[in-house]
Amino acid sequence: MSKTLKRPRLRDLGLGVGILPVGRWNAITDVPGVKVGQVTLIRGKGRLRPGKGPVRTGVTAVIPAPGNLFTDKLAAAVHVLNGYGKSVGLMQVAETGRLETPILLTGTLNVWRVADALVDWVLARNPRVYSVNPVVMECSPHWLDDAAGRHVGRKEVFAALARARSGPVEEGNVGAGTGLSSFGFKSGMGTSSRKLPRRGGGWTVGALVQANAGAVQYLRVGGFPFGRELVRAGKALPSRTCLTAGEARRGAANVEAPDAGSLICVLGTDAPLSARQLRRLAARAGLGLGRAGLNSGHASGDIVVAFSSAERFKHEEPRPVISRREVPDALLGDLFAGALESAEEAYLNAVLRAATLDGANGAKREALPAELLRKYLEDRRL
Amino acid sequence: MSKTLKRPRLRDLGLGVGILPVGRWNAITDVPGVKVGQVTLIRGKGRLRPGKGPVRTGVTAVIPAPGNLFTDKLAAAVHVLNGYGKSVGLMQVAETGRLETPILLTGTLNVWRVADALVDWVLARNPRVYSVNPVVMECSPHWLDDAAGRHVGRKEVFAALARARSGPVEEGNVGAGTGLSSFGFKSGMGTSSRKLPRRGGGWTVGALVQANAGAVQYLRVGGFPFGRELVRAGKALPSRTCLTAGEARRGAANVEAPDAGSLICVLGTDAPLSARQLRRLAARAGLGLGRAGLNSGHASGDIVVAFSSAERFKHEEPRPVISRREVPDALLGDLFAGALESAEEAYLNAVLRAATLDGANGAKREALPAELLRKYLEDRRL
Amino acid sequence: MSKTLKRPRLRDLGLGVGILPVGRWNAITDVPGVKVGQVTLIRGKGRLRPGKGPVRTGVTAVIPAPGNLFTDKLAAAVHVLNGYGKSVGLMQVAETGRLETPILLTGTLNVWRVADALVDWVLARNPRVYSVNPVVMECSPHWLDDAAGRHVGRKEVFAALARARSGPVEEGNVGAGTGLSSFGFKSGMGTSSRKLPRRGGGWTVGALVQANAGAVQYLRVGGFPFGRELVRAGKALPSRTCLTAGEARRGAANVEAPDAGSLICVLGTDAPLSARQLRRLAARAGLGLGRAGLNSGHASGDIVVAFSSAERFKHEEPRPVISRREVPDALLGDLFAGALESAEEAYLNAVLRAATLDGANGAKREALPAELLRKYLEDRRL
Amino acid sequence: MSKTLKRPRLRDLGLGVGILPVGRWNAITDVPGVKVGQVTLIRGKGRLRPGKGPVRTGVTAVIPAPGNLFTDKLAAAVHVLNGYGKSVGLMQVAETGRLETPILLTGTLNVWRVADALVDWVLARNPRVYSVNPVVMECSPHWLDDAAGRHVGRKEVFAALARARSGPVEEGNVGAGTGLSSFGFKSGMGTSSRKLPRRGGGWTVGALVQANAGAVQYLRVGGFPFGRELVRAGKALPSRTCLTAGEARRGAANVEAPDAGSLICVLGTDAPLSARQLRRLAARAGLGLGRAGLNSGHASGDIVVAFSSAERFKHEEPRPVISRREVPDALLGDLFAGALESAEEAYLNAVLRAATLDGANGAKREALPAELLRKYLEDRRL
Repeated sequence: MSKTLKRPRLRDLGLGVGILPVGRWNAITDVPGVKVGQVTLIRGKGRLRPGKGPVRTGVTAVIPAPGNLFTDKLAAAVHVLNGYGKSVGLMQVAETGRLETPILLTGTLNVWRVADALVDWVLARNPRVYSVNPVVMECSPHWLDDAAGRHVGRKEVFAALARARSGPVEEGNVGAGTGLSSFGFKSGMGTSSRKLPRRGGGWTVGALVQANAGAVQYLRVGGFPFGRELVRAGKALPSRTCLTAGEARRGAANVEAPDAGSLICVLGTDAPLSARQLRRLAARAGLGLGRAGLNSGHASGDIVVAFSSAERFKHEEPRPVISRREVPDALLGDLFAGALESAEEAYLNAVLRAATLDGANGAKREALPAELLRKYLEDRRL
Repeated sequence: MSKTLKRPRLRDLGLGVGILPVGRWNAITDVPGVKVGQVTLIRGKGRLRPGKGPVRTGVTAVIPAPGNLFTDKLAAAVHVLNGYGKSVGLMQVAETGRLETPILLTGTLNVWRVADALVDWVLARNPRVYSVNPVVMECSPHWLDDAAGRHVGRKEVFAALARARSGPVEEGNVGAGTGLSSFGFKSGMGTSSRKLPRRGGGWTVGALVQANAGAVQYLRVGGFPFGRELVRAGKALPSRTCLTAGEARRGAANVEAPDAGSLICVLGTDAPLSARQLRRLAARAGLGLGRAGLNSGHASGDIVVAFSSAERFKHEEPRPVISRREVPDALLGDLFAGALESAEEAYLNAVLRAATLDGANGAKREALPAELLRKYLEDRRL
Repeated sequence: MSKTLKRPRLRDLGLGVGILPVGRWNAITDVPGVKVGQVTLIRGKGRLRPGKGPVRTGVTAVIPAPGNLFTDKLAAAVHVLNGYGKSVGLMQVAETGRLETPILLTGTLNVWRVADALVDWVLARNPRVYSVNPVVMECSPHWLDDAAGRHVGRKEVFAALARARSGPVEEGNVGAGTGLSSFGFKSGMGTSSRKLPRRGGGWTVGALVQANAGAVQYLRVGGFPFGRELVRAGKALPSRTCLTAGEARRGAANVEAPDAGSLICVLGTDAPLSARQLRRLAARAGLGLGRAGLNSGHASGDIVVAFSSAERFKHEEPRPVISRREVPDALLGDLFAGALESAEEAYLNAVLRAATLDGANGAKREALPAELLRKYLEDRRL
Repeated sequence: MSKTLKRPRLRDLGLGVGILPVGRWNAITDVPGVKVGQVTLIRGKGRLRPGKGPVRTGVTAVIPAPGNLFTDKLAAAVHVLNGYGKSVGLMQVAETGRLETPILLTGTLNVWRVADALVDWVLARNPRVYSVNPVVMECSPHWLDDAAGRHVGRKEVFAALARARSGPVEEGNVGAGTGLSSFGFKSGMGTSSRKLPRRGGGWTVGALVQANAGAVQYLRVGGFPFGRELVRAGKALPSRTCLTAGEARRGAANVEAPDAGSLICVLGTDAPLSARQLRRLAARAGLGLGRAGLNSGHASGDIVVAFSSAERFKHEEPRPVISRREVPDALLGDLFAGALESAEEAYLNAVLRAATLDGANGAKREALPAELLRKYLEDRRL
């Protein structure tokens, strides 16, 4: 893990995206009350023995606000960039505009076990409840992981939830990001935030990204087309998605289908936004993810879930009419910008922070060559 | 079970809805290749002991076509009438327009376990697969069942799939319908079908309904407002949803919130329809369900999933362009009518066929009084 | 017009649907502040001379609240049952959840001229505005009308808006309902409302329906299958949508394609609902319309637009955060029921109230035989 | 106009985006059969006199395929990035998946007149038709134009349609792009295309963009953050959307709200795609537009309409079942990449090609400083 900790975030490279200032930790936890907890499973080496390993997966828990989320729900919304994915719980969030559990991220084939465990966790805190809507999303670590072994269960879920805390968020090969790849390189979890000027309400928007997607030719780091440079310099094989005729003839493609990747983005804010406004906020994250290089292939599960911690909605509301705060629509521009910028940067951090990792059957994912990136930037005085 | 078998279907009462002819079994299994299998769990009596029982739930499996659904997928679509529900797998069906597993129905809190078991079942038939999209939907039997005990698992899922067959489909208190209620009476599973005239292509449309919804005042049996009659005659307490001021004062309401119910409708057809056309077909089922009395309260998970077994779509298609058949849009009217009519009738069968059942803590759901219905119809020469 | 006035509303027949009490006028104008104005164009007879006539169309204006709607907008939402239609302005309502103009209804090919005229009307009241979103919806009166002549323009739009008032709403062959047909009979405009008990907030929900849709076999008046009865008694030709094989052979079909009809429903309420809640309210109107017999064919433009007059949203809001009231989701059931019931009844009034009318090329639409309906109800003591 | 012709396209600068090869004209007209015709209105100078001028607007017509589009429709789809706009006809395209008229682009307040004129044009070619769905989209040129004067009507619409041709497409201050601005600079129409390698089917994807949106800090030209550079160098005022606290204090903002812009993208392809697949294609254009800098503010109408000219769908199809070709979903990656890349490049061309233009009340929009851009690229050896 020490290797991970040394890898740079985008801003350690002197880069940034957008112009809004970042929050204290430049993390989703800059949104007051948001906590993140992760359990990383890295076990075994060598040949894949389904059900045994090697294991390269985990679970990441986002606790979006303090207290009992089931009795005091949050406004939330979903934006599906491409719905090839196994997410659990999004239909009810879309209909009701409410989030009533923590959000869990994990490996694809673990989602239903993780959802079942999350229900255990909620029922333990809310006896006599017979309907609860767990929200779980996923990317597939199968390139390195014994995916069919489904190694994440109740124990890991409860541990991730117990470990959740505010402050800096670990990035790269941790939690649900453990076995992932993007742009042909190792990737994992990444985060970023934006703190709006007081004039704009002083709100914070934060993004947490589980990144497993992207064709290398499209990678732009801090606004610079570094992926294209890597291919030109022979440091990366082009992704199959966007081969030229010549490349196709030479078979010079990355062996994996990059369009089979996925990307999950969790957006949080303390601005009082309605579910309708949060859905629009989530859509802007898509523009930011596109800027970093997301191409959203056919088999990519690219999903944004956004929540606001500003208002709580009671499960059993005794009043016939409630009053709630809302940012006027005409002032949403800054918040939209915050979502866009923090999503782009979180995606880049998810790539930059992930160290080289090997896995099942000797497969190996190299880290993005950060030194080459530094040199590229220096050479061009960027 | 013998009691169930004696209860009438809508047509046993000399009634019907719509005018299209029904298929041989008047069941979803009239669609060539469709099979249904059910496992019913009725265990224990008396006081609720969470994890122990009493158990009043089950699982219903719809195998929509022969062969390997994962390698040779079907066109499919989703229509969400109200998305307060815990359905699994609908996002990917909506995005890709493809169904790659059987469809399972069960009790609310079982869905994730059932989905996980369905993935086991698919992986056993498709080794080396690391991404599969199980489709599981639910209604809550908590009024009679030890819901939190989540008694449906791998064993029941595999058994339901193994038992699936064509021919008549058992209705009422079976499978996923075991512990359910609609219109304040016992309900469960119901089915119906329509066979189009040859002029219209000769296609079959079939509906299978898992019914757990409806305010009694809205119940219309075969087009007649029998629910209103039951309330007038003092044979049913009005549902809380639609109390008059006077009723509210007297507290003369059914103790349950009828708007917390749910209804799942699976539509199958052998007409060659695209996913887009199937989504439109599914929307018409909603109109039919409304005719029987569905009112779709806030907390109701009312969902229609439609599939066509006419064309198969390969998971790994070697050809750069495929050719597929499609009914022209201007000829969809008959198919839409078939969906509308069979959904209404399946919902009514789900209520008519369910016998009285008791469950946890001595709760009891009475069957709809079929003799009163017969008398009502006779008295008015309907 | 005198003939129209004598035709019965549903309640004049001793019938009703649902159980919630109706408002004072049993009209959308029971929602405080809502006004309706209509201009009816019935000119010429005999042979169709495009651009000349005969003319059987008009325009209906709904002014949803007092004051300047552009500077002080309403919450609003759209539910598209079937999107084969030429509606103008719905995309922006769906995105922003705001209504900033009156709602106009007219004949299909008039919509763009009517929208352009509505923009004139708004700009005259809001100089310096360069972006305004007029909401206009339509049904096609082409069976009786010189549709291609597009006879509704600026003059009629301004007149309908000027005439708008609260109180009883004229129904049948008026305004946008002038040349329409439903269930093979003459139809037009219809309205109804529900007033919730004080316990439920005392809110009013009202529906205004422009009806041009429905296969006669599906018509249910006050919950009774009167359309089926009409066909059985030889008083109506079955609609083509749902022919049995035998009927198809005999060619015994209504000459028109009933699935080419359309139905527009405007829902208003004074309950403080968010745009998200209004979208859900609008979906329930669909269930009610299905109950009366709507079958929503392929070429049917069946659309519900809902607004709440409870809160106003400023075009230029100076405050960084606003506060607004909202009915808690768990209490939406009664409002949903009100939408469902008033939409069903408004649709039926639109059919019952329309008198026989002839039009272009001697085409003629008979009124629904109200005396037969009375006899049917009496004979069966319904 | 001569000035416009001298302005560079992206590739004239030695830049490009993505890696797929472009088509012959690098224009939407590279899609076989697609024609574009434009009418530009530049009249008057000085003070705004509503109804008189100055006029800085126009209309752009895309004829997507030869022959009668009404009788032989195309598959089509809509993706709404942000629905604050006055588009006409999108609901029916979304429902039916069919396009039955040319696509017209114009200034915001002209859309209804233009739609009405387009209906004239279709009816003249299809007498006896009483229902046609014109597709018209818009951006607002009000910064330079007498917008409320609505200067585009029947004459201009018919002329644009008559002038439509294949081959190179004029960009910049032409047609519907005449009075527009993006990133604080003059912008207008732009186009680009991608030709897939034969291995990927050899299909062409082309984009036509009407650009009126974007905050300058987000502008990336050919992958380089040139907009940020312009602000740093004092050559552009930052957009209000994304002010830092310091900038807000100094009031150093661009006077216009950049989030009030809009962007329309028309995508065409000769690949046989279903409406469902075209909707997914359209979503990828959004990612490409984000890459160039689109931020999609609250009041931005950002819409993508995609069509395939590969198959025709008859208005009156005599056959009960049709057969149609379709690219398998797993091969959509290259087409998605083509949409993404051509949309990004078309947006950039729309900015690069637009010359400085003045308009009403002496307002003036400067062209993007192309020489500075060249120097920026040279200095950094990019």
